[in-house]
Amino acid sequence: MDNKIKIGIVGFGTIGKRIADAVQLQNDMELVGVTGRTYNYRIQLAKDKGIKIYPFPGYEDELAQNGIQFAGTFDDLLDNVDIIVDCSPKPYGKENKEKYYLPKGVKAIFQGGEKSDAGEVSFVAQCNYNEALNKNYVRVVSCNTTGLSRTLNAIDKLYGIKKCQAMLVRRGTDPHDVKKGPLDAVVPTLKLPSHHGPDVQTVMPNLDIFTTAIIVPTTIMHMHSVNVQLQNPASKEEVLELLKNTQRVRIVRNAEKVNSTAAIMELAKDLGYKRGDMMDICVWDDSVNVYGNELYFMQAVHQESDVVPENIDAIRAMMGFQDKEFSMRMTNQSLGLK
Amino acid sequence: MDNKIKIGIVGFGTIGKRIADAVQLQNDMELVGVTGRTYNYRIQLAKDKGIKIYPFPGYEDELAQNGIQFAGTFDDLLDNVDIIVDCSPKPYGKENKEKYYLPKGVKAIFQGGEKSDAGEVSFVAQCNYNEALNKNYVRVVSCNTTGLSRTLNAIDKLYGIKKCQAMLVRRGTDPHDVKKGPLDAVVPTLKLPSHHGPDVQTVMPNLDIFTTAIIVPTTIMHMHSVNVQLQNPASKEEVLELLKNTQRVRIVRNAEKVNSTAAIMELAKDLGYKRGDMMDICVWDDSVNVYGNELYFMQAVHQESDVVPENIDAIRAMMGFQDKEFSMRMTNQSLGLK
Repeated sequence: MDNKIKIGIVGFGTIGKRIADAVQLQNDMELVGVTGRTYNYRIQLAKDKGIKIYPFPGYEDELAQNGIQFAGTFDDLLDNVDIIVDCSPKPYGKENKEKYYLPKGVKAIFQGGEKSDAGEVSFVAQCNYNEALNKNYVRVVSCNTTGLSRTLNAIDKLYGIKKCQAMLVRRGTDPHDVKKGPLDAVVPTLKLPSHHGPDVQTVMPNLDIFTTAIIVPTTIMHMHSVNVQLQNPASKEEVLELLKNTQRVRIVRNAEKVNSTAAIMELAKDLGYKRGDMMDICVWDDSVNVYGNELYFMQAVHQESDVVPENIDAIRAMMGFQDKEFSMRMTNQSLGLK
Repeated sequence: MDNKIKIGIVGFGTIGKRIADAVQLQNDMELVGVTGRTYNYRIQLAKDKGIKIYPFPGYEDELAQNGIQFAGTFDDLLDNVDIIVDCSPKPYGKENKEKYYLPKGVKAIFQGGEKSDAGEVSFVAQCNYNEALNKNYVRVVSCNTTGLSRTLNAIDKLYGIKKCQAMLVRRGTDPHDVKKGPLDAVVPTLKLPSHHGPDVQTVMPNLDIFTTAIIVPTTIMHMHSVNVQLQNPASKEEVLELLKNTQRVRIVRNAEKVNSTAAIMELAKDLGYKRGDMMDICVWDDSVNVYGNELYFMQAVHQESDVVPENIDAIRAMMGFQDKEFSMRMTNQSLGLK
C-alpha cells in the first residue's frame, strides 16, 4: 500500500522547479506531476527526466507542438493529488484557487506573492507550523518575510523584541530574467512601511516592526540591515550562539572572506548545493553588534530558494503530520541543510 | 600497488578548486593536496572536506593563525606528486616554474593567462592531445581560446577554413569578484587583433583568424560572434549536425527559450552541474547561418569552467596515456558531460 503524500505542482518556474526537486527527495512524498504553460528548457528538462506533465488549460497546443506529451488533463492532475503546490506568479495562485481548487476541494499551498488571504495561515515552519495543521489552504510567505521571520522569531523568543526596524536592500530581478531591471538606478519604495513589515506580522502578529526597502541593480540575494530593541539584555556572543543554533540560519564569517552576497553565492556553489542555492538565511558574524538594549545585524536572503523547505514542511502540516521538529529535520536532511 | 597519477594543485581559486573536484572524480588520479595562500572560505572548505593543505611559501603564518593545519611543506608537496596543476593568476605560474618546478624536475600544467612559452605545448584536448604526450610543461589555453578552438577545429577539419573573424564580447569579471568592473561601461580592446586570435594559433597554427574584443558589464559567460569563410560548401543543417556531434560543444535551442547567457547559466543549474558550471561551449541553433561560403554562428563560453576537462586530459597526455579518445571519454563521463 502506497501512503505517500501525492503532490502536484502548478507553475514550473523559479520556485516550482525547485519544489519539484525537493518533493522528489522526500521519502514520504510522491511527485504526481507538474503543469506546463509556455514551452521552454525547464519543461523540456522535466520531460527529459521523466516527470509527468499536465498542460495548464489553454496551453495544450503550444506544448504539444513542441513535442511535450501529457500524462492527462489539468483536471486529472487535480483528481490525483493530495495537495497542489501553486507556484504561479501573483495573482494567479488566488485565481486558480477560486477557479479550480475550491470547486474540487483540493488542498493547496500558495507562494508569498499572493495576498495573505489566499491561505488560512501565512506560514514559516519554525514560527507557526502547528497553525497549519490539517488546513486546506496555506500561504508560504515571501523570501524576505521568511528571512526576517526566521531570525526575529529566535531573537523574540529568547530576549523579547520591543521594536524592530529593518532596511531591505532588494535584488532587482532573478538571474535568468533578462527583461527586468533596474540596470542602473537605485529605486526607493515610497509607500511606507514597505509591505514586508506587515507581512512579517501575518506570521508574528505581536511583533512591532517597521520596514523600508530599496531596489538595487543586482540579481543575487536580498540584504537586510536590522535593528532590534530588546526587552532583555543580550551580548554579541550570545546572539551569535543563538543564531548559530537556529534552524535554517547560517552564520557566515568575515574572516573567511565571506564579505558580500557574491561570496555567499560562491560559497553555496562550493558547498555543492544544487543550482548553487543557499536556503539558509545568512547572518554576517561581524555585523552582529549590541549597544545597550539595541541589537544590530545584517543578513542575506537567497530569493530563489529559501522558501523551498517551508513548502515541504507546509505540505506535512496540512496533511496532519503533528511533529514539527521531525518534519523540519527530515526536510533539512533531504536538502543537505544543517 | 597504487599506480594512480598523483596530482598537486597550486592556487585554489576559481580554476584550482574546480580541478581539485575533477581530479577527485577520476579513477586513475589521486589528489595529493592543494596549496593555500590567504585564508578564505575556499581553503576552509578544503579543510572541512579533509583535503590535504600545503602552505605556499610565505603564507604559513596567515593560514596557521586561522586554524589551517598543514600536511607538509610546499617542498613536500612537490616531492610527492607526478604533476602540479598550477592555477595561479598570471604571471605567477611561470614564476613558479622557474623557481620551483624546473629545479625539482616536476612536471606542471599552466593556465591560459600565462604566456605561451610557459608550456612546450598550448593544449586543447580535441585539437592536439598527441602533441602533449610525455611533455613536462603544458599550457592549457584560456577559456576563450578553448572555446574558439573546439568549434573551429571541427569546422576546419570537415570544411576547411579559408579565413575566420570573431568578435568576442567578454564578461567584466567573475561572479565572486566584487572589486573589478566595468560596472557601467563598454570597454573596447584597442590593440588589434585582440590576443585571442594569435592565441588560437598556438593551438591551430595554420588557421587564418582575426579577433576583436570588447568587455561588457556582466559576470556570466563570454560570447563570440564568429564569421568563417569556408573552403568547401556547407549547409546550416550540416553545420548544426557537426557541432552537435563535436565533443564539449552543445547546441542550445532558441525554441526552448535558451536565448541569453543568463538562460544558459540557468539551464546549467537545472541540469544539476556542480556550481551551475557549463563546461560545454554553447552554440545557439538559430545563430548558425550559411550565406554562400560564409558561415556565421554565435557561441557562449563559461569562463570559470570550460578548461576543467582540458586540464584533466592534459594530465593523462603528459603521463604518456596514448589514447586521446579514451581519455576524453573518461573525463566527460566523470564530469557528467555528454
